[in-house]
Amino acid sequence: MTGYTAPLAEMRFILEDVAGLADIAALPGYGEATPELVDAVLTEAARFAAEVLAPLNRPGDIAGAVIENGVVRTPEGVKQAYEQFVAAGWNSLPFDPKFGGQGLPWTLAVAVQEMWASANLAFSLCPLLTQAGVELLQEHGSPQQQAYYLPRLVTGEWAGTMNLTEPQAGTDLGAVRTRAMREGNHYRIVGQKIFITYGEHDLADNIVHMVLARTPDAPAGVKGISLFVVPKYLPAADGGLGPRNDLRCVSLEKKLGIHASPTCVMAFGDNGGAIGYLVGEENRGIEYMFTMMNNARLSVGVQGLAVAERAWQQARAYARQRVQGRAIGGSGPAPILRHPDVRRMLMTMRTLTEAMRALVYFTAGALDRAKRHPEAEERERSRLLLELLIPVTKGWCTDRACEIASLGVQIHGGMGFIEETGAAQYYRDARITPIYEGTNGIQALDLVNRKLMRDEGAAAMRFIAGLRQTEAELGDTGDEGAAAIARALGAGTDALQQATEWLLKTYPTDARRTLAGASPYLNLFGTVAGGWLLAETALAGRGRAPSGEPGLATARMQSARFFADNIMPFAAALAVQVTAGGDSVLAAPDDDL
Amino acid sequence: MTGYTAPLAEMRFILEDVAGLADIAALPGYGEATPELVDAVLTEAARFAAEVLAPLNRPGDIAGAVIENGVVRTPEGVKQAYEQFVAAGWNSLPFDPKFGGQGLPWTLAVAVQEMWASANLAFSLCPLLTQAGVELLQEHGSPQQQAYYLPRLVTGEWAGTMNLTEPQAGTDLGAVRTRAMREGNHYRIVGQKIFITYGEHDLADNIVHMVLARTPDAPAGVKGISLFVVPKYLPAADGGLGPRNDLRCVSLEKKLGIHASPTCVMAFGDNGGAIGYLVGEENRGIEYMFTMMNNARLSVGVQGLAVAERAWQQARAYARQRVQGRAIGGSGPAPILRHPDVRRMLMTMRTLTEAMRALVYFTAGALDRAKRHPEAEERERSRLLLELLIPVTKGWCTDRACEIASLGVQIHGGMGFIEETGAAQYYRDARITPIYEGTNGIQALDLVNRKLMRDEGAAAMRFIAGLRQTEAELGDTGDEGAAAIARALGAGTDALQQATEWLLKTYPTDARRTLAGASPYLNLFGTVAGGWLLAETALAGRGRAPSGEPGLATARMQSARFFADNIMPFAAALAVQVTAGGDSVLAAPDDDL
Repeated sequence: MTGYTAPLAEMRFILEDVAGLADIAALPGYGEATPELVDAVLTEAARFAAEVLAPLNRPGDIAGAVIENGVVRTPEGVKQAYEQFVAAGWNSLPFDPKFGGQGLPWTLAVAVQEMWASANLAFSLCPLLTQAGVELLQEHGSPQQQAYYLPRLVTGEWAGTMNLTEPQAGTDLGAVRTRAMREGNHYRIVGQKIFITYGEHDLADNIVHMVLARTPDAPAGVKGISLFVVPKYLPAADGGLGPRNDLRCVSLEKKLGIHASPTCVMAFGDNGGAIGYLVGEENRGIEYMFTMMNNARLSVGVQGLAVAERAWQQARAYARQRVQGRAIGGSGPAPILRHPDVRRMLMTMRTLTEAMRALVYFTAGALDRAKRHPEAEERERSRLLLELLIPVTKGWCTDRACEIASLGVQIHGGMGFIEETGAAQYYRDARITPIYEGTNGIQALDLVNRKLMRDEGAAAMRFIAGLRQTEAELGDTGDEGAAAIARALGAGTDALQQATEWLLKTYPTDARRTLAGASPYLNLFGTVAGGWLLAETALAGRGRAPSGEPGLATARMQSARFFADNIMPFAAALAVQVTAGGDSVLAAPDDDL
Repeated sequence: MTGYTAPLAEMRFILEDVAGLADIAALPGYGEATPELVDAVLTEAARFAAEVLAPLNRPGDIAGAVIENGVVRTPEGVKQAYEQFVAAGWNSLPFDPKFGGQGLPWTLAVAVQEMWASANLAFSLCPLLTQAGVELLQEHGSPQQQAYYLPRLVTGEWAGTMNLTEPQAGTDLGAVRTRAMREGNHYRIVGQKIFITYGEHDLADNIVHMVLARTPDAPAGVKGISLFVVPKYLPAADGGLGPRNDLRCVSLEKKLGIHASPTCVMAFGDNGGAIGYLVGEENRGIEYMFTMMNNARLSVGVQGLAVAERAWQQARAYARQRVQGRAIGGSGPAPILRHPDVRRMLMTMRTLTEAMRALVYFTAGALDRAKRHPEAEERERSRLLLELLIPVTKGWCTDRACEIASLGVQIHGGMGFIEETGAAQYYRDARITPIYEGTNGIQALDLVNRKLMRDEGAAAMRFIAGLRQTEAELGDTGDEGAAAIARALGAGTDALQQATEWLLKTYPTDARRTLAGASPYLNLFGTVAGGWLLAETALAGRGRAPSGEPGLATARMQSARFFADNIMPFAAALAVQVTAGGDSVLAAPDDDL
């Protein structure tokens, strides 16, 4: 099994030349993000990921989280690692200094998140859930709630969870049945929640559950769901930890992957009702949830990228050292990376991973601009771009992650199927990412139903105009390789534009048919966006001085060219699926399926 | 978790109208295969698969095979199932009646194999390995070896194994180091073998290992490998079981899937040398292995089909009963199969599985014709077609199986990630099929290096001419749907022909570049062949009277149309990968990868 080494040169290049971190650091409120600090954060995070988190990944997978008499224990070593994580301040990176955060850009936080998730996906989920809780309370909590919970959540002394899903209420949160009965200044919460990541564990002193529930007089459906903060330990009069709340973990799920992270069935109120505190106003819970959705979905896109990076490092190392057969034109036994077919798999892994990183960091840049840009118009433009790209980033990166992890297994041959090697774990771990935080089907619906239709494609068309500009710049270089990349980008952009126009035209009269093409449209969007950003990095590597190692500019051109020749051609087929495939998706009656 | 029901109507349709089972049954030597017998075999196999094998699949996955003091135990119930399997005569279906076989067509045997593998992939591997041993000895064993081993292997009383791989010798069998020292009329075998499926177990009275090893004076490489039969129990003078041979299972691998099948590290000769008997002549072991390769690789293609079918049945059942959200235009909660995106996934699963079945049975038909056709010319044509299609069937079906099993997980949402549901097991089990019996990269090399180049594309071009004929027949129907299928088939065929011509032209001067496109070429070939065969079934369903249920003809047209609109468009992109993608696969120097 190969360890993890953060690809720092590559990360810095993308942060600087794709996400524009220097500009972002200059935004109001990001004064802390000096180049020196950014550098130190990346270097130290890389060390922590490699030395502390990565070594726990495989043992954690084997041991798994366990439950005994309602007590959930994480695998050996994880608690110590979490304590180091909190002590080093890693949890507080992007949060408001008002609550003890470091106020650093999300773009930087995303790069750091990538390292946590590459090193140890199961571990990284705990701070991620806490992050969601922080965002909800920062945005919607009362001053008292903020003062009490946020400082501890920001440091990570306390952990957060999201309690949304119930057996009958997965994608459809309107079906939530957990009840909340008012009782003085709090509520009594009664109900069962499932799939609660880190719902119970031994890492933090307290666990702060954000729970969706329904008050007795609430309207039906999503408009009757309220949000409650329900701590494992109730507040004591002195501000410390009071008595245990009436909630418990009933059982842990046996999962395909991320074994070290407990996925809990949670019971609230078995003994009269858990005490919960309303966040904001009644019946606005779903609306509040949406405020942290962009970040949460971006973070799952980061996870896709992160697992892909880890799988790629593992496969590359194996392909370099595994000797088998002779290479064409070579003499004597050759490492398998000399075999053209293995090289195709490696280049696919590398190039898609790079494209994913570019897309993730680019999207994070939009998030920072949407939050912090001094000009309202630019904030708004960034917000629209961000919201357009969020489902694409989540969906495309996580689907590609599964594909890349599978290629990683394949490169190992028989060894890939043996758990000891490690490649299989990435294959299993990656598989959750297209599912949680909104399945990729839901991302595709969000992209078409909301993000495309709400402004009649304006944001999408602005995005497409940007692609055309890059295509022209590439053509202007006079370089043959750049011209080939430009042609492929042009063809991909044509496909995206054609599919977009068809969706805009067809949706008003035949939404069902357009939604039958939503998933291929998301895939098309991600493919073209990924290829575009790799083309941008090739331009950046060519024109502007790369910040990293000397080989980086050449590598950028290789990757962009590989993408242009081998991945972008699929854009046209995806556009056909969108525009001409829907009828045959829908043709068979239900009973014939 | 959903059980398994063999899709008998669909299987019969494909057997009759795609593989031409009636013609095959009329071939010399297949006199036993009357319509009544075929029918009884299919019906009984379906029952055995559903009632005996399928219920053991999930418990077997959980318990796994275990080793204690060198004794390997299969999960509870498997031994009894195997005994029933043997008692019912299932093991002997396709073998020579001379050795106790039933002499039935391989085409029928393949359909039956599909049911075993759908019901319980891990179980099905044991008879499959025995089958390989039977074929080797039928073809190359001495009369004494045949008389002693074959009757017991044919019934399944004894099981067979293939001992090929060693740590340094996976794909490259020329690197085998296991030694064989002559000693009178036998040899002493010393060495270690890995990845030995069912290398040791408690199902059969004896285990007959087919072992590749090297004699002291053998030439280097693949031309110095000999094949030995090395039984777990040596023959006694009375023809029964004698003393235990000097071989043992050292350990079992912990694998991603197929947990119920023991994958063994085998040690031969720890105490002086295991006694082995030469099969055929020295140094011809690899050549002998190739005689059973077509069947073995076809069987792995069957496995891909089989797991896909099981995953599809599971996902369809879930999508029918899981209620979540409202369907567009519907009122009230809807089963998720009404959601267009879920329906796209289901149609993809269904259509690809049907295309795989058509390809597998069609290839099996070529195998029977190559073995049994009375005319030498037709035998030879069938052999060339068979050998061309074997790598395509193995590679395409197993890659698609992973994709389909992944869609199956996705349709379940969060439940798909929970092992209890069963979908995750198919995802894990399927993953071995692109790896073993020659990785899919090796299949692609075989397709381009050998099967295409050896006759300068003659067999491929004959195949392509058949596609053109179907295209024309579809056009002649005057039916609009058929015309759309014809257009897609035409475009796919163009792509296949163009890629084939480019490979034929380029290979002599730049083999490395062509081999960089070998995997996409295999994928292209499989895609076009699968779409063609579905188009054939649409024609068959249209013109000829379908043998099955009345809805089958409509369903055939739906599937062919879905494939035409949604899958065939990718053929063009795959052709670009083949013809224009190779340079950027090879561009990066080794150290930059």
